[in-house]
Amino acid sequence: MKTYRELELRFARLADLSAALAVLGWDERTMMPAGASPARAETTAGLRVLSHELLTGNELGDLLDAADAEHNQLDDWQRANLHEMRWQRLHATAVPADLVHALALIESKTEMAWRAAKPNSDFPAVRPLLEETIKLVRESAVAKAELLGLSPYDALMDQYDPGLRTAFVDPIFDAYAAFLPAFLERVLAKQASEELLPIEGPFALDKQRALALEAMRAVGFDFNRGRLDESLHPFCGGAPGDVRITTRYDEHDFARSLMGVLHETGHAMYELGLPESWRRQPVGEARGMTVHESQSLLVEMQACRGAEFLSWLTPQLRDAFGGEGPAWSETNLRRHLTRVRRSLIRVDADEVTYPAHVILRYRLERGLLSGDLPVADLPEAWNHGLDALLGVRPPDDRRGCLQDIHWYAATFGYFATYSLGAMTAAQLFAAAEAAEPNLRADLARGDFRRLMGWLGRNVHAQGRRYSTEELVTRATGRALDPTIFQAHLQRRYLDEA
Amino acid sequence: MKTYRELELRFARLADLSAALAVLGWDERTMMPAGASPARAETTAGLRVLSHELLTGNELGDLLDAADAEHNQLDDWQRANLHEMRWQRLHATAVPADLVHALALIESKTEMAWRAAKPNSDFPAVRPLLEETIKLVRESAVAKAELLGLSPYDALMDQYDPGLRTAFVDPIFDAYAAFLPAFLERVLAKQASEELLPIEGPFALDKQRALALEAMRAVGFDFNRGRLDESLHPFCGGAPGDVRITTRYDEHDFARSLMGVLHETGHAMYELGLPESWRRQPVGEARGMTVHESQSLLVEMQACRGAEFLSWLTPQLRDAFGGEGPAWSETNLRRHLTRVRRSLIRVDADEVTYPAHVILRYRLERGLLSGDLPVADLPEAWNHGLDALLGVRPPDDRRGCLQDIHWYAATFGYFATYSLGAMTAAQLFAAAEAAEPNLRADLARGDFRRLMGWLGRNVHAQGRRYSTEELVTRATGRALDPTIFQAHLQRRYLDEA
Repeated sequence: MKTYRELELRFARLADLSAALAVLGWDERTMMPAGASPARAETTAGLRVLSHELLTGNELGDLLDAADAEHNQLDDWQRANLHEMRWQRLHATAVPADLVHALALIESKTEMAWRAAKPNSDFPAVRPLLEETIKLVRESAVAKAELLGLSPYDALMDQYDPGLRTAFVDPIFDAYAAFLPAFLERVLAKQASEELLPIEGPFALDKQRALALEAMRAVGFDFNRGRLDESLHPFCGGAPGDVRITTRYDEHDFARSLMGVLHETGHAMYELGLPESWRRQPVGEARGMTVHESQSLLVEMQACRGAEFLSWLTPQLRDAFGGEGPAWSETNLRRHLTRVRRSLIRVDADEVTYPAHVILRYRLERGLLSGDLPVADLPEAWNHGLDALLGVRPPDDRRGCLQDIHWYAATFGYFATYSLGAMTAAQLFAAAEAAEPNLRADLARGDFRRLMGWLGRNVHAQGRRYSTEELVTRATGRALDPTIFQAHLQRRYLDEA
Repeated sequence: MKTYRELELRFARLADLSAALAVLGWDERTMMPAGASPARAETTAGLRVLSHELLTGNELGDLLDAADAEHNQLDDWQRANLHEMRWQRLHATAVPADLVHALALIESKTEMAWRAAKPNSDFPAVRPLLEETIKLVRESAVAKAELLGLSPYDALMDQYDPGLRTAFVDPIFDAYAAFLPAFLERVLAKQASEELLPIEGPFALDKQRALALEAMRAVGFDFNRGRLDESLHPFCGGAPGDVRITTRYDEHDFARSLMGVLHETGHAMYELGLPESWRRQPVGEARGMTVHESQSLLVEMQACRGAEFLSWLTPQLRDAFGGEGPAWSETNLRRHLTRVRRSLIRVDADEVTYPAHVILRYRLERGLLSGDLPVADLPEAWNHGLDALLGVRPPDDRRGCLQDIHWYAATFGYFATYSLGAMTAAQLFAAAEAAEPNLRADLARGDFRRLMGWLGRNVHAQGRRYSTEELVTRATGRALDPTIFQAHLQRRYLDEA
């Protein structure tokens, strides 16, 4: 196993570079003085190039080839690790270095132009750069597709969620698009009939922070191996064994930050629960973006917006903010936290309408990539598409095709994982509940230990040992079944079992 | 210049790794959750090994050899850069990899044992490990000495201050040791005759922090490219263009933190003033530890403990802490900030007695390295030596030979730069004053612009273009002249011109 051991050493080195980049990324968004940006950009670019060189170098290729001979000596975890090493190398070597470089350049130019164009709803200002970006993303997708034996779009999705294919996603999304309109009508009608009392602020920021920390503690976040800080855009970052989430407090809305913190805590619990003995190895990383998003949404949507957890949370909210009267009742609070709207902005969307935003982007980006949808036609396609899916039409591109950073940062193939994550979350939660019948009673006491124990064993500690599909099947008894998510929505929003 | 350009690219990569390590180092001491230590240790060790491999690899050696042919095409800065590249490589390749590894291992073991032994004054507990450490440091010094054509101790000093030699240091330190006893007697007698009123706390921490920020602003610290935070042990860290200093506030003593902040600000101004166009190149780094310490001590000791700056500071202190009455007079405050004592602890020492602590360590560590001083005899040699130099004898090893981390962290050859820095600071300040006659009047208004302008041009912006000796000579008209420091002390402590 000499070759395999040598590979472990080399991938540990790559993991060190990744961990350094992760801490630098956290620092950049929370602590770094603004004027340090140019120097920091050089530093991170340098570390990325170095990492890419190590991963694509001939030495590593020779070692991976030679490791075949040792296959019989490896145990299951080691084989899975070797598989992940090959997968990383394949994706890294598929794209020629000059294309990687060109993509990095256009990406930063396009993103900068997008930042300027978005507030003015000025899509034409960024259109030529987006066209150039898509051209290069397409070249890179084609290069990956050839090496991986996939379609270009599948090759892109494979980067974020290994094994994810349009053949799997299409029917799931088509079914949801068919399910949504009538269901949404019924939910909106029901909610319109229910009294909703405004919950008045302001909500003191120090109370919000104390509550966020309390909620994180309840979920089981380990502050000895992580932190909570503030940043403009919330994220879960940091390095293995040192997981750092962020939030942004709004004096007039406590729920956004609090629910955001619970969402990021779900991500964080996954990272903190990855198999310690495989730290610094590919197999010890999170499975992929679908499973990652399933963990954040399981905590936020499945557990924390459910009636049980909210019954625990409500008195704490009242204490923290001095709330009293009917507006602060459990029922009124729950109505606020499960309010459904035909909204324009993905990141503000509720769990019922969120998939519509995702399906729109998933369909559009495939058209952009294939060339079927010219970039010039994107704004109209977006507005028409959202209207068709959700019955609402953006009045401008700021709230339309300019709202998300992804495409302007050359990210294509990512969106689907948000909604697949939501569906996976519902399925995992249902399986956890079946295995641990007192789960909801636990949550009503703010006790996540059984839920997290089950997730820890069935998801977190598995790292990348299994494919996403196998992981879900082993944990829940079957592959992803989107009807479980629909059933969850029917129960929560229409009181239908 | 193809070879030289390729070298620049490779050293820029090494600078990226250094910058990443520097931010990680800052993070570790200010932000990192405690439980992340083991993972972080792996990450930083991985980056260090990678950096060492790149620096010592054959490719870089071949490039450096080939660069000789281009020597005539290079300008002065490029030649100086090439010289610094060679110097870095020479130090890195001099010590065999297995010895580097053994040193890293023993260093962390010894340092851990020292941390346990120090509070108990238990030198015997750490003695065997210190012996082993010194043995390996000696091997490494001998290896360097051979390659560099120096004595082993000079080879160690050369790491921290290229070009620094015992032949230069010995007469300077011997002269100070001869000067000190009578001078100290006179200072102590004078100060004993002056009334010193206690300045009573507590001093609110938020006021201390506001004052520290105000003082940093006065010196010219650029908060767009730096920060002030808290840590157990104050330091100046961060990366080029992103300089971060720390302090620790004590409710019962505002001066320690405030003067510490000014000290670190001096270091920071140097880092922030390094030549921007040579960022990421060896010639763009700080010259060495003597010049670095000269910058912190110039700000703290020369400028900020001087009567002029204190006349600006005093009313601000009174405002911040609500101080009134004779204890808060300018004179009483100045007496506190220039108080001289025969003290046991180096880091608490005043500028008059500080060199005695350094001279003691400088002499002892040469004996330890050569073997003339057996480790077993160190405690007595320390206590006897301090008594001889300063007239005070440590009652235990905690306040004796266990007080400093350096030797237990395998750092030998560093101490001299503290006092050479103090002497260089006096000389630079005198030269700045000669060039800018209104300097002291500026400081009395809290205006550092002229002082920092002069330092920026003559020291900061020069990077490593010249040797330490040439830098000082160009800036002040002569090589380091320790009598200028003595004259400064005579003026400040005995009112003698």
